[in-house]
Amino acid sequence: MKHTISVLVNNRPGVLARTAGLFARRGFNIDSLAVSTTQDPDVSRMTIVVEGPDAVLEQISKQLYKLMDVIKVLDHQDEAVVNRELALIKVDASPAVRGEIMQTVSIFRANIVDVSDRTFTIEVTGSADKVDALTGLLSKYGIREMMRTGRIVLSRGAPTA
Amino acid sequence: MKHTISVLVNNRPGVLARTAGLFARRGFNIDSLAVSTTQDPDVSRMTIVVEGPDAVLEQISKQLYKLMDVIKVLDHQDEAVVNRELALIKVDASPAVRGEIMQTVSIFRANIVDVSDRTFTIEVTGSADKVDALTGLLSKYGIREMMRTGRIVLSRGAPTA
Repeated sequence: MKHTISVLVNNRPGVLARTAGLFARRGFNIDSLAVSTTQDPDVSRMTIVVEGPDAVLEQISKQLYKLMDVIKVLDHQDEAVVNRELALIKVDASPAVRGEIMQTVSIFRANIVDVSDRTFTIEVTGSADKVDALTGLLSKYGIREMMRTGRIVLSRGAPTA
Repeated sequence: MKHTISVLVNNRPGVLARTAGLFARRGFNIDSLAVSTTQDPDVSRMTIVVEGPDAVLEQISKQLYKLMDVIKVLDHQDEAVVNRELALIKVDASPAVRGEIMQTVSIFRANIVDVSDRTFTIEVTGSADKVDALTGLLSKYGIREMMRTGRIVLSRGAPTA
C-alpha cells in the first residue's frame, strides 16, 4: 500500500541524508520526495511517498521520530487530504499534431509554457492519476523529457491545533 | 550563488541517501529537492537547489558522477530553463477577508482548492519568486500550514540529443 508521510525537520545539513538512509537501510525505495521550506524558514517539510506493508512503515515512522532534527512525523494514510503534484513534459509537436495536443492540454487545464520548432513544454498540476493520464495520452507523440515534483499534501479543513 | 542541479539516477534504494550524504558531508544545506520518476520508470530524476561557491559545487557535481547508480548530472547555471514549483497554502479566512483573499488569488492565477469555516487552502504554480510574493501577501491573514514542492526545471527549446 502506498503511504504519504510528512516529516517536519529542522532546516540543517544532514537531516535529509539521515532520513533517506533510514528508508534505504530497510530496502525501501522512495517513490517520490519533495523537500522545501515552510512558513517558518528554520523548518523544512519533507513529503515522502513510499510503498510497503503498513506495519513496517509504522515502525519506520516511529524510528524517524528518534532521528536528530526531526520535529514531527505524520502518516496521512487515514486522513482526508488535498494532494497535488506538478509536472513539466517536453513532447514532440510537429505542425501536423499541434492542434490535437493543444486540445488535450486544454481538457486537462494544463498550460503550454515553452515552444520550439519541434516541441511543446507542458505544465500540469493535479493528482498523480491526472498527471499519469496526461502523460499516457501524450506518449504517442513522443515524450522527450519529463520532470515531476512528487506529491505534496495538506490535510483538509481547518487545523485542529 | 544558487545552483539548480539535475541528477538522473537508477531508481534503486540507497541512491537518494548517497546523494544527500555527499552534500551533507560538505556541510551544504539543500534549499529544495524534488525526486520523482521520469518517462522511463527505471530512472528517477532529482532536482536539487543549493547555495554555495561555484567552484565547490562544480567539484560536487563531479563527485556525484562517481556515485553508484548516478547516470547524468546537469548544472543548469548558464542555461535557459523553464522553472516551476507548486505550493499549497492554508490561510486563515474569516468572512470579512474572504473577498480580499479571493481577489489576490485570482491576480496570481492561483486556485482555492479547499475551504473550511475558517480557512482557505490555495494552490499556486510558478517561479519561486511568484510563490514568495503570494505567501508574502497572504501572511498578514495568518498562514496556518504551507508546503512547497521545490523547484523543477526543463531546458528551453528542443533537446539537442
